[in-house]
Amino acid sequence: MRACLSKSFRGMGVCSDLFFCQWRQVRSSTSTVTLSQTMRRALALAERVEKGPYGPQPSPLSVERSRAVDAQGHSLRARAALGRHSFYQRSSETEELQTSGSQEFGVTFTDHMLLVRYREGRWETPAIVVRRPLELDPGSSSLQYGLQIFEGMKAYRPDPAGPETEDVVRLFRPRENLQRMYRSAARLALPLFDTETMLHLIEEYVRTEADWVPVRDLPDDLRPVSLYLRPCLISTDARLGVRRAKEALFYVIASPSLGGYYSGADPAGVALLATDEFVRAWPGGVGDAKCGGNYALGLVAQELAHAEGCHQVLWLDPERNVTEAGVMNFFVVTSAGEVLTAPLGEGLILPGIIRSAVIELIRGGSVPAQANGQPWQVVERSLHIEDLIRGIEDGRIVEAFGTGTAAMVCAVAAIKYRGRTYRLPEAADNHQRLSIRLGKAFERLLFDPGRETSAHPWIHTVQIKPTPQVASASRTQFG
Amino acid sequence: MRACLSKSFRGMGVCSDLFFCQWRQVRSSTSTVTLSQTMRRALALAERVEKGPYGPQPSPLSVERSRAVDAQGHSLRARAALGRHSFYQRSSETEELQTSGSQEFGVTFTDHMLLVRYREGRWETPAIVVRRPLELDPGSSSLQYGLQIFEGMKAYRPDPAGPETEDVVRLFRPRENLQRMYRSAARLALPLFDTETMLHLIEEYVRTEADWVPVRDLPDDLRPVSLYLRPCLISTDARLGVRRAKEALFYVIASPSLGGYYSGADPAGVALLATDEFVRAWPGGVGDAKCGGNYALGLVAQELAHAEGCHQVLWLDPERNVTEAGVMNFFVVTSAGEVLTAPLGEGLILPGIIRSAVIELIRGGSVPAQANGQPWQVVERSLHIEDLIRGIEDGRIVEAFGTGTAAMVCAVAAIKYRGRTYRLPEAADNHQRLSIRLGKAFERLLFDPGRETSAHPWIHTVQIKPTPQVASASRTQFG
Repeated sequence: MRACLSKSFRGMGVCSDLFFCQWRQVRSSTSTVTLSQTMRRALALAERVEKGPYGPQPSPLSVERSRAVDAQGHSLRARAALGRHSFYQRSSETEELQTSGSQEFGVTFTDHMLLVRYREGRWETPAIVVRRPLELDPGSSSLQYGLQIFEGMKAYRPDPAGPETEDVVRLFRPRENLQRMYRSAARLALPLFDTETMLHLIEEYVRTEADWVPVRDLPDDLRPVSLYLRPCLISTDARLGVRRAKEALFYVIASPSLGGYYSGADPAGVALLATDEFVRAWPGGVGDAKCGGNYALGLVAQELAHAEGCHQVLWLDPERNVTEAGVMNFFVVTSAGEVLTAPLGEGLILPGIIRSAVIELIRGGSVPAQANGQPWQVVERSLHIEDLIRGIEDGRIVEAFGTGTAAMVCAVAAIKYRGRTYRLPEAADNHQRLSIRLGKAFERLLFDPGRETSAHPWIHTVQIKPTPQVASASRTQFG
Repeated sequence: MRACLSKSFRGMGVCSDLFFCQWRQVRSSTSTVTLSQTMRRALALAERVEKGPYGPQPSPLSVERSRAVDAQGHSLRARAALGRHSFYQRSSETEELQTSGSQEFGVTFTDHMLLVRYREGRWETPAIVVRRPLELDPGSSSLQYGLQIFEGMKAYRPDPAGPETEDVVRLFRPRENLQRMYRSAARLALPLFDTETMLHLIEEYVRTEADWVPVRDLPDDLRPVSLYLRPCLISTDARLGVRRAKEALFYVIASPSLGGYYSGADPAGVALLATDEFVRAWPGGVGDAKCGGNYALGLVAQELAHAEGCHQVLWLDPERNVTEAGVMNFFVVTSAGEVLTAPLGEGLILPGIIRSAVIELIRGGSVPAQANGQPWQVVERSLHIEDLIRGIEDGRIVEAFGTGTAAMVCAVAAIKYRGRTYRLPEAADNHQRLSIRLGKAFERLLFDPGRETSAHPWIHTVQIKPTPQVASASRTQFG
């Protein structure tokens, strides 16, 4: 295994077995999320309303296969994904296959989608169907009243050197995504669902789209390459009264993700515009739910950031404490070895899966200690923008980064506030930076081909060769 | 005209010509909306991004007619609307026509919808088509990121006694709805549009669906009956990055509205649950935009209100000032003749068209003065929930009501806060109540058949007989 590790990190200058030794320490730690009062109340109400219609699905999953398959059964569009990271896309006019090199986030989609419909108080037979437009009543409350939630998670292939390459895809802590989605559903009065059933269906979906999970071109290509999965839950109720959705659709689409989320950003990191003019979340609101409305309200601020030469917004709460960075959680690192991030309890912060993993990696000692030998200390507390600025100016704050499923760990190079730009210090040795170390820890966890890694509790392994019960009569082959 | 007025208000005990005399006073008043800092900035940014692609449409409107027309060309479903306020609906299974008595708000829809697509920086040829499901890419940012706004406006038929009955439909201040929609679009970085072009298209749509605008069964039926119009603007961009929509759809659907919005409410009014646990809007947010996310976040609070025996929520801001009541603006009336409502400037309040009309009616002297002869005084200022409660307890607050397009003017009977219910006083003479007087003022304005009323600046008259240029070759007749 060590040989594989060395290979996968060739040229990066760091190959510490420390990560692996210490990952074991956090295996037993369970992820706990501090819920806001609003979220606790929403969960209690939702579970009282939904009296158990969300058990396991008795009906078999039906699978409709794309017609565009080659002799080996691989999707024509997906085949290329196994090789050079470019994709064939079918032109809608000519039905001819064309090469598409787009690596912009979320532009290329896979062939299929997973659909589970909710009607008359229960979830109906799930289906994996060829990706096509959804037919939605124009009065649907998902389009009128923002009754829509989503999640983002990624599927990875271990590096090809290991024994699992051909038949394994990894998901990162997918149960936590589904548990967060469950809480988001409760917060927006959308139907609840059984998270284990949904995980089982997503596994099936990942098997169907496994050809689309990119393989990294080792050894020179060290970009993260993955298949981004987007589970969604929307109301399909077609009535204009503002009320709980009686019909809904859970669906999953997927998009291969090759480059970084912030294309064109300085390798030193992104620049953030701190704004107290636009506010993302507030106590008693929905800042801790992953719902559409949280994103709609951020676009103008994002454009303002671009107009001021920044990549993204640094969101402040009504007291001007820093909360999130664009669509990421936000961390700063002090010269004393404190790693600060905003606390969850008030509901202003999305409880990020990568945020939680970063905290656990550091607390579990899975990143090398500071240069002085002292361990890092994670502190979840509010940080005022003025204190952040002062900390950068007097050198007490040495690093800042964002975390999220799309961007993973994203370094912050500068913060602009009220017309002035404050640059985070440039690292003498980049590999000493905590954000780089965390990024490498994730890379190893996600791509290392070792069986030990596959057994890590954060890794959810999906066997992509269909198991006997999957290849049953319920699987229909078209074309 | 006086005869008609008397007829339309027969049995209600009040027939004051005062309204008509004094409406003239407010004719010249232009509606001004105090914009929040956030909204001003959003407008400035949006207008800088959109450099004029939203001019008048050069292409002719195309109209696709429903197949379900009778010999006179009336929609079969709509025919009944002219009579007894029940509707025929086509069963989706059998295609047979069935009678539907549903008067729940927003359940029955008309035959057609108006569609205007935005693509490549411009609005395309508009079309009125038979109502059918929208085909939306499952990755559309309207479904993912809440990029969706809407409006609510109503079309009315003057009472049948007047000369205009057969050929006129009235809209109430539709320009203001479209101007508010324009601001909402700017706030959410959706494409801007020319409000006059959209008004022209909505007029055409109202002509197409004119059979669906209900007629009141005078003299005993004094419920408001109207055709509720729902203009929507959604992003149709199919990519997962959070960014400005490059493709969008403006559409309008319509639903006949017969009963009150709050079915089953006490005639004395609705009961409101004041909550500081759930918060609708906050400075720097989107509380003054009519976007989906503002409604999604309210459902759990609404269910909590129902669980506590109330009809709706009384929203408090972070300082516990009262802001809105459910999906309505909120007013209280003091024994000294003050009419208090929350101010707009901070962006916590939806700038309601009915709210604005109520303020202008009172300020213009269009409702009878108080019993002591003094005029009412509208004051836009914050009111703390504790002051509201104390005011009810010591008798200084004598009345409360909500306003909105769906409910028009809706009396509030009680407010529940922290486990206790505070009842507004019962009126000795109900007709003296300001909410009743305002409701009557609106009814007269909307339904009076007089030509003078049609010329009121708040009334936008649509001739429903097609004008020659409308009945052009661009109008396609199916079936």
